[in-house]
Amino acid sequence: MQLTRLAFIGTRGHYRLVLDALPRLPHVRVVGLCDGSTGPVDPLTTWCQQNGHSPEAFHDYRKMLDTTRPQAVIICGPFEHHASMSIDAISRGIHVLVEKPAALTFEDLDRLRRAHQEHPDIHLASMMASRYSPGFFTAWKLIRDGAIGDVRLLNARKSYKLGSRPDFYRERETYGGTIPWVGIHAIDWVLWMAGQPMESVCAVHSGVSNEDLGTMERSALCQFTLAGERFACVSIDVFRPPAAPSHGDDWIRVVGTDGVIESRPQSLSLINRDNDGSAPVPLMPTTSMFEDFTAHVEGRSHALLDASSTFTITQAALAARESADTGRIVSR
Amino acid sequence: MQLTRLAFIGTRGHYRLVLDALPRLPHVRVVGLCDGSTGPVDPLTTWCQQNGHSPEAFHDYRKMLDTTRPQAVIICGPFEHHASMSIDAISRGIHVLVEKPAALTFEDLDRLRRAHQEHPDIHLASMMASRYSPGFFTAWKLIRDGAIGDVRLLNARKSYKLGSRPDFYRERETYGGTIPWVGIHAIDWVLWMAGQPMESVCAVHSGVSNEDLGTMERSALCQFTLAGERFACVSIDVFRPPAAPSHGDDWIRVVGTDGVIESRPQSLSLINRDNDGSAPVPLMPTTSMFEDFTAHVEGRSHALLDASSTFTITQAALAARESADTGRIVSR
Repeated sequence: MQLTRLAFIGTRGHYRLVLDALPRLPHVRVVGLCDGSTGPVDPLTTWCQQNGHSPEAFHDYRKMLDTTRPQAVIICGPFEHHASMSIDAISRGIHVLVEKPAALTFEDLDRLRRAHQEHPDIHLASMMASRYSPGFFTAWKLIRDGAIGDVRLLNARKSYKLGSRPDFYRERETYGGTIPWVGIHAIDWVLWMAGQPMESVCAVHSGVSNEDLGTMERSALCQFTLAGERFACVSIDVFRPPAAPSHGDDWIRVVGTDGVIESRPQSLSLINRDNDGSAPVPLMPTTSMFEDFTAHVEGRSHALLDASSTFTITQAALAARESADTGRIVSR
Repeated sequence: MQLTRLAFIGTRGHYRLVLDALPRLPHVRVVGLCDGSTGPVDPLTTWCQQNGHSPEAFHDYRKMLDTTRPQAVIICGPFEHHASMSIDAISRGIHVLVEKPAALTFEDLDRLRRAHQEHPDIHLASMMASRYSPGFFTAWKLIRDGAIGDVRLLNARKSYKLGSRPDFYRERETYGGTIPWVGIHAIDWVLWMAGQPMESVCAVHSGVSNEDLGTMERSALCQFTLAGERFACVSIDVFRPPAAPSHGDDWIRVVGTDGVIESRPQSLSLINRDNDGSAPVPLMPTTSMFEDFTAHVEGRSHALLDASSTFTITQAALAARESADTGRIVSR
C-alpha cells in the first residue's frame, strides 16, 4: 500500500526533518495537524499552506486520529507524552514516527512495548536521525562489511551548545534528562555499530553550572558493557562554547580487531590493512529518515529504524539514566 | 646540592628518556649500573662507553646502591619490583625516578607510601613522561590559567599497537595489567588537568583477541568521578593497526564552563570566548622529565612529577584495575 495520509502531533522536536523530505514524496499528503499540548502549530500550518497541503487542525490528538484516519503519524508532542501518544496511534493501527526518547520511564516503555506486541505489523520508529548522516551511515556499513574486523571498543560523543532552553528543560518530568535527550544518539550509534546487546551500564551525570536550568544535566558519561566483553563509552555535554563553528560536535570512534574508524556526520577516517588513515574515505549515499520510514511502511524495504531498535535504544538510555541517578551499575 | 652521582637499575621501560637528557646535564655522572633482573644492561653499558661515563656494573642492586652511593637512581627493573627497589633506595636516602606504575598492588603502594613518609625530603617520581609533551603541558597550563573556566568533563585515550611483546606481558603478576601499564598515562592526564581528587571509578577490561598473550588485556574503559561532580573517562586499547602512522594515539579533551581544549602530544586546539578552534594554538616550551627531576633534586624548582602525584596516580590506576577485576564501583 502507499502512504498517502499523514498527520502531525506537536512541534516539539525534529518534525522539520519530515517536512524537508515531503517534497520528495508527493503522494504523501498531510491530512491532520494537532498542537499536542506543545503550543500552536503555526509553523506546520504555514508550511502546509506554502506547500499545497490542506490538513484539518485539531486540539485533541485522539479526535484527529479518529477523524482524519491517517496511515501514519509524526509525534512531536511533550516528551512525557511520547509513549501515550504512540500507544494511542498503534492501537488504532496507525504507523508511528516518534521523537526520541520514545518513553521517559521504564513503565511507559513497557506499556509501549506491550502495545506494539499486540500490533506487530505496525511500524514504530523513533527519530534517531543521525543514522542517516553520511558519515555515521558509512561507518556502520563499513563495519558491517568487515572493514575493521570484530568490534571490541567504541567511544562516542555528543556535545551541544546550551543556547536558550524553554522551561520544560528545567524539570525531569518534562525533559527526561540529558542522557535520554542528548546522549541517546551516541548510545544509539555504539549499540547499532557494535551490533551487540547491552549487558550493563555505569553512568554519571551532573547539573552543576547549568545556569539555573533546574534539574537539567550539562555533563554525563555512560560506560556500557556489551556482549562478548565489548565496551562502549559515551561522553555527553551541553558546554559547547558559543564561539564553536557548529551547534553539535558529534563523533564516534570504533576499534576493531583489524582496524579503527573515526566518524563525524560528514566525514570518516579509516585505518586498517589497506588504509593508513591519511585519506578521507568517500561517504556512501543515504536516504532520509522519513523516506526510509515511508519505504518501510509501503513494504519496499526494512528501515534502519524500527520498533526493535526503538525499544533497545530507549531501554539503554533509561538504564544509563537510572545508573546515574542511583550511583549503581544497572543490568537490564 | 648538585646531582653528580646517578645510578640505573634495569632496562625495562623508559630509561632511554634519561639517557637522552644526560648530555644536557654534564655534571650528572653515571656511577652505577645494575641489571635488576631485567637481563643484561648492554644498552646502558654501550651508551656510557660512547658518552664518557664509567659506571661500575653490578648484579645486586642493593650492593650497587651501597657501593657506588648514588644521590639518585633510575629504576627500570621488573614491574613487580618497582616498589621494593624504590623503598630500598628511599630508605638509603637516595632520590628515585621509577618507571610507572610505581607499585603493582595496593600493598606495595602502601609500603612505598610509608617508606616515603619516613623520608619526606627524598624526591620520588614515576615516569609519567607525557606530561612533558608540549601539547599536554600547554593544555595543563592553559587550564590552570583559566582558559576554559571550571573543568567539568574530561575524555582521554591511549591506543597502542600490539607489536611483539616479551613474555612478562603474559602474566598479571609481572605485567600488572593494561590499565596500570598503558592506561595510567591517560589517568594521569585527567587527574592532573582536572586538579581534583578522584572519588570513585568504574572500569572494565578484556583480554579477548590478545593473540595468546596470556592475561594481557587489549581493551579497557575507566570512568572516574572526581570531586565536585566532575567526570572523566579514559579509553585504552592495544588494537592500533600496524598500518597506523604512529605507535600511539594519545589524545585528551577537556570541557570547561568557558571552553573546550583538545590536545595531542604535539598539537592543541582551543574553543573559548576568544578562539573558535580553527587556528592551532602555539605550544609552550617544556623541559624534559629528567631535567625537571634533577632541578627538583637540586632545589631549583618543584617538579611536575613528585611523590604526591606518584601516589595519587598509582592509586587511581590500581583502583580502576580493581573495579575492572571485580565488576564493582571502587571508592578508594
